[in-house]
Amino acid sequence: MRHGEDRPPVLELTTGPVAAYPEVLRAMARAVAYDQDRPFRDRYAGVLDKARRALGTPLPPVVLHGEPVLGLEAAAAALIAPGETVLLLVSGVYGRGFGGWARRHAGRVLELAVPDDEAIAPEAVAAMLARHPEVAVVAACEIDTPSGTLNPMPAIGRAVAGHGALLVVDAVSSFGGMASDAVATLADLYVAGPAKCLGAPPGLTLLGVSARAWAKMHANPAAPRGSFLSILDWEAAGAGGPFPFTPSVAEIHGLEAALELYLDEGPEAVWARHAATARATRAGVRAMGLALWPAREAIAAPTVTAVRTPPGIDEAAIRAEARARYGVLFSAGRRETAGRLTRIGHMGPAARPIHAIAAVAALGGALAALGHPADAGAGVAAALAALAAG
Amino acid sequence: MRHGEDRPPVLELTTGPVAAYPEVLRAMARAVAYDQDRPFRDRYAGVLDKARRALGTPLPPVVLHGEPVLGLEAAAAALIAPGETVLLLVSGVYGRGFGGWARRHAGRVLELAVPDDEAIAPEAVAAMLARHPEVAVVAACEIDTPSGTLNPMPAIGRAVAGHGALLVVDAVSSFGGMASDAVATLADLYVAGPAKCLGAPPGLTLLGVSARAWAKMHANPAAPRGSFLSILDWEAAGAGGPFPFTPSVAEIHGLEAALELYLDEGPEAVWARHAATARATRAGVRAMGLALWPAREAIAAPTVTAVRTPPGIDEAAIRAEARARYGVLFSAGRRETAGRLTRIGHMGPAARPIHAIAAVAALGGALAALGHPADAGAGVAAALAALAAG
Amino acid sequence: MRHGEDRPPVLELTTGPVAAYPEVLRAMARAVAYDQDRPFRDRYAGVLDKARRALGTPLPPVVLHGEPVLGLEAAAAALIAPGETVLLLVSGVYGRGFGGWARRHAGRVLELAVPDDEAIAPEAVAAMLARHPEVAVVAACEIDTPSGTLNPMPAIGRAVAGHGALLVVDAVSSFGGMASDAVATLADLYVAGPAKCLGAPPGLTLLGVSARAWAKMHANPAAPRGSFLSILDWEAAGAGGPFPFTPSVAEIHGLEAALELYLDEGPEAVWARHAATARATRAGVRAMGLALWPAREAIAAPTVTAVRTPPGIDEAAIRAEARARYGVLFSAGRRETAGRLTRIGHMGPAARPIHAIAAVAALGGALAALGHPADAGAGVAAALAALAAG
Amino acid sequence: MRHGEDRPPVLELTTGPVAAYPEVLRAMARAVAYDQDRPFRDRYAGVLDKARRALGTPLPPVVLHGEPVLGLEAAAAALIAPGETVLLLVSGVYGRGFGGWARRHAGRVLELAVPDDEAIAPEAVAAMLARHPEVAVVAACEIDTPSGTLNPMPAIGRAVAGHGALLVVDAVSSFGGMASDAVATLADLYVAGPAKCLGAPPGLTLLGVSARAWAKMHANPAAPRGSFLSILDWEAAGAGGPFPFTPSVAEIHGLEAALELYLDEGPEAVWARHAATARATRAGVRAMGLALWPAREAIAAPTVTAVRTPPGIDEAAIRAEARARYGVLFSAGRRETAGRLTRIGHMGPAARPIHAIAAVAALGGALAALGHPADAGAGVAAALAALAAG
Repeated sequence: MRHGEDRPPVLELTTGPVAAYPEVLRAMARAVAYDQDRPFRDRYAGVLDKARRALGTPLPPVVLHGEPVLGLEAAAAALIAPGETVLLLVSGVYGRGFGGWARRHAGRVLELAVPDDEAIAPEAVAAMLARHPEVAVVAACEIDTPSGTLNPMPAIGRAVAGHGALLVVDAVSSFGGMASDAVATLADLYVAGPAKCLGAPPGLTLLGVSARAWAKMHANPAAPRGSFLSILDWEAAGAGGPFPFTPSVAEIHGLEAALELYLDEGPEAVWARHAATARATRAGVRAMGLALWPAREAIAAPTVTAVRTPPGIDEAAIRAEARARYGVLFSAGRRETAGRLTRIGHMGPAARPIHAIAAVAALGGALAALGHPADAGAGVAAALAALAAG
Repeated sequence: MRHGEDRPPVLELTTGPVAAYPEVLRAMARAVAYDQDRPFRDRYAGVLDKARRALGTPLPPVVLHGEPVLGLEAAAAALIAPGETVLLLVSGVYGRGFGGWARRHAGRVLELAVPDDEAIAPEAVAAMLARHPEVAVVAACEIDTPSGTLNPMPAIGRAVAGHGALLVVDAVSSFGGMASDAVATLADLYVAGPAKCLGAPPGLTLLGVSARAWAKMHANPAAPRGSFLSILDWEAAGAGGPFPFTPSVAEIHGLEAALELYLDEGPEAVWARHAATARATRAGVRAMGLALWPAREAIAAPTVTAVRTPPGIDEAAIRAEARARYGVLFSAGRRETAGRLTRIGHMGPAARPIHAIAAVAALGGALAALGHPADAGAGVAAALAALAAG
Repeated sequence: MRHGEDRPPVLELTTGPVAAYPEVLRAMARAVAYDQDRPFRDRYAGVLDKARRALGTPLPPVVLHGEPVLGLEAAAAALIAPGETVLLLVSGVYGRGFGGWARRHAGRVLELAVPDDEAIAPEAVAAMLARHPEVAVVAACEIDTPSGTLNPMPAIGRAVAGHGALLVVDAVSSFGGMASDAVATLADLYVAGPAKCLGAPPGLTLLGVSARAWAKMHANPAAPRGSFLSILDWEAAGAGGPFPFTPSVAEIHGLEAALELYLDEGPEAVWARHAATARATRAGVRAMGLALWPAREAIAAPTVTAVRTPPGIDEAAIRAEARARYGVLFSAGRRETAGRLTRIGHMGPAARPIHAIAAVAALGGALAALGHPADAGAGVAAALAALAAG
Repeated sequence: MRHGEDRPPVLELTTGPVAAYPEVLRAMARAVAYDQDRPFRDRYAGVLDKARRALGTPLPPVVLHGEPVLGLEAAAAALIAPGETVLLLVSGVYGRGFGGWARRHAGRVLELAVPDDEAIAPEAVAAMLARHPEVAVVAACEIDTPSGTLNPMPAIGRAVAGHGALLVVDAVSSFGGMASDAVATLADLYVAGPAKCLGAPPGLTLLGVSARAWAKMHANPAAPRGSFLSILDWEAAGAGGPFPFTPSVAEIHGLEAALELYLDEGPEAVWARHAATARATRAGVRAMGLALWPAREAIAAPTVTAVRTPPGIDEAAIRAEARARYGVLFSAGRRETAGRLTRIGHMGPAARPIHAIAAVAALGGALAALGHPADAGAGVAAALAALAAG
């Protein structure tokens, strides 16, 4: 009895988009309101206020109308003035990827890089900035999802603040799943999205913007205006003014429901179940004799567990087998990590300790089916013990 | 980190109502059609046809507008003519419970009873009927959910057919989850519902009616007419005639979606995943040193696994602990079996092998937390092995 | 361009089931909770409390698990002790119809009848009861939907109270659409449902029960117990006790949403839009030279407008034409009124003044298409004037 | 009794976003699939195929992940090579607005402009192009929504084809509501969206791309690549290749449902009800003594009716009054037409003849309430007559 690959999986333990919360899905089915009519204007203002509370910012956030790659591209375009020097902190695919946009606008792009299974050291950032007082913008990725690694963003943020550069934080895979927000990271542009730990569909960017970032963008003549890429165009909407174009009404409905769930459950409680699920998963993975991708457990992300592909095993076959035998869907690696690891997401509705058990069992069962000696029983026992200890 | 008891469980592994399939839930949100308008009439006819295919009957089934206790009460009232002798086959709570309704209408009610952890032997039925040629109606329960036991209904049906009595089969917990239908069981009234293995909400009865049953009900002057309890009132509706009262439009929408899912996936495939889930659960339970409630594995139901409460453990605490630690919801026993067992449902959307893993781990983890030596790792390993062997 | 009869209508202006409110439909899609788990128990208690507030009763209402014909049959079975005398107040199809159930239980059934286009006079009730001190139960229908007439229930209630008999009120088409509740009508059993003015799907009965009614049912040995028809079985559930059988979880979800909408909008505001829609419809109908079915406008119901079929016109053709030309669905008459009138519902989401305009135009347009001289322009002008005056 | 401005309107007759079809809304609530898993890949391919059939194109369309302003900006960026000459056809706000994007890329932008209540003459286009053989790209808007005017796009397309320039057609408010598609208009980039006549939420662009357009974009080194604004990035996805970033899964679900509704009802049938609704609205408006905004009825759009504000009336008050009295929501003018007209949308679910009646009555009633002599009865009579004649 195999689960057909044309049928939806039973359990979606991916790195996003995740299977949204049922309350969010039902909110997506709300009637589409006319965006200029009072009920939608009121709702939009309420969403911004909830987003502001979730992001911890004094200023209303900006909602951009595309998934966070839009937000990141828009951040680069708006914050980097022509000719400026940008420092990229590179510990993985997304940290590196920001460079593509940065190079369009910057005069020079410096990189502080570590291997893809390592994390950025705040001291190294401070040292680099000391050597490069000309750096105007620093870009970092808090959790580099393709590696499942976590960078110590608050400390990095303090290093950047000490220097005075503006900081762009890619918090797409951290926000909502751990203690991360626009204030704690000292981000000037804090880029997040609804389709990871908030448990909503993809299609929007949530952007925390500092007062300094607004000032810089206003002063930057090259910052997009009159464009889908523009952050500035949405400033007025944050104060109740007109929308530059029709908002994605249904996505706003979904975001509202996701933010309400998040605030109602309580951010700390949500983070705790992300952490517990990840911890149990890691314990189970290790007890099966497998290696985590991150070099040390201390830098393993609480929202995604990356498991190094054992030698001699076809990595795609692991995922195919887990899906076919158990209906459990994992994510592959991406770009530099493709083929080298399998990723188990713990995001939003998937961040439940019982799903750590399912993940460990499915991974172990799949490996065993492929001839790799993985003791799923021991893995599950270790995962349960980690939960009991937690 | 405990899962609040006021929050919905993460995994609903109950004996019904079950967490309906998402497609069914979305169908419940269809606009409510006026029941006398053509689109709803067409849809209703289509639902009856799909139900007929699922039930395997030559005649259109009857949909009664209450959960299956209505169907069972209605069956007793319509099929048992005043003064007749009824034979109850009692292997559990529901088999026994039919007697309450039967005694209102019958002259005499005989019982063929076995202990609540045993199944009815077809030979015993044949022998009993041979001694009681006056029996007019036999009532049996295919899976007595509170015990998790399975009666060999086709063989029982043949014994009854050999005698000539009419047969009422309570197939509520078997239909849709195993090879059971109105024809295979030789039932005259085959009573099923949508909220178990079909994965739809509770609120309707699906009734397979044989030609003999129609004749008997027509001839029975005491059969309800002009009543919510009436089966006869719905005969015309099965042929496109008027409804005796307003149908539960939304439940019909949900039933339609559930039947479509069932027929599209293929009954055999659906049964296979119920069987595999139950088999893996039983293997896991036994590997943890726990006892199944059914006396022998051969009579363990494929849709629910009843686990005997180990001595010295507070049975309610097991379920509370599984829910609080893992968000996994099991069912308690019921009436005679209350306190003596815990039930793990494998019905509809819960009938997935990976949920057997979660069930075994949650049960083992909960017992361990209560001080009972249950080796969840060994349980999961055995469950995985059962799946691999399946 | 005709609207296909196999396609859903554009505007459902029927007498129920009505096209439920969108919020209610989305609530129907909530995950099906296990009925014995805490979240559903909490929700159920909340629904009873909201229903109690809507019904105006001191005691928690009872929710029966079938559309209100179940509630009416159950009321007759529980409240009428064997041999008692029952007085039926008959001004139409449903008032008359209660007799079918009453005669099963009563010793004698008296009728106080008026023509089907008239209303019951409270004085006549008082006089009848004075002549018949033996009457134990009086049954009345507040709005007899097939006639679109309104009986003055509070005054009738006072007449019954003066005598001491128990009163069953069929409030199915009045509750939620006008100032009617269990207290104002002095009902002992007040029978309502969600699929009319509450704008939810059919499938439940809402039952207001007075303390006297509970006492009488307890004392009545013939009142159903252990039955789908039982009211008594549900008493414990009203106090947080167990359910006698699995509730229709999805219908409870829908009812909750409908009650929240009703209480949030404010009952007076809801009644006002029902009244305004009905008033405008009547003005428009009369301005087109058509006759209302009720003998006097004072007894025309605020939730349904019955329009007498003009002589020489095929009544079914009127409705077919309104549907085919405009996608507007009206209801036919029923039993005694079938063929003699067309009914325009103003219930729940259909009770909107703009729908009065659509109704008048569609009715006028359909009649004109059939060769009947109806001036829809004048009708709409009168309807608008009635709204402006309102 | 006034309809609160904080409550959703009863009838949304706006120019978009429109109140989506219920089937589309339910589709939005589908589980969010992982975009790289087979079921979503299959679904995406199916959506492209349905879109291709709806757009009439030989090649698969491109879905961009923002509402059509993204599509228009992307079209300008990709199709206009640096230094080229662009001809804008300007008959209103959106025709003019394309110039903002065109000027970023073009060497020179020519305008062929007519007053905002007029349409572009194909002969004038031909003449202009004859004078300007250097024109590389022509941009036109088929229905300029803020004016409710229709440009004769097929004939314009032939004029452009005769010259050889590439043609960008803004079909946002025409596609799906009239006989317009990528082939009939001879468009090289045909820009449409789901939130107008398709009756789905806003958030996507549907882009028909000709082989010539692909060739031009490939050859244009300045065409965006690696950007949210890129059309080229999505080429591979149209052939089953990887997505450049996570698609808006829920919007794709909604688009699929909308395309299925469109193809199932039949494009001709859909266009016919748009046309009939618009025709009846125009007849009603004129019969009330009001003037259409378009200079001649022949150039009035079938998807939106713009009504000139009568002198001496506060235009915002007309809409406020229609909303407060009847719950009917109209759109205001926009930019150059703001304050000068009121717009009644006939798009998707709003394109129903009975809503023309509601629109005329609400407009007439609102004007009368403001003291303007508008005979709504005569308006409705004329609208009905137009429908009867249709």
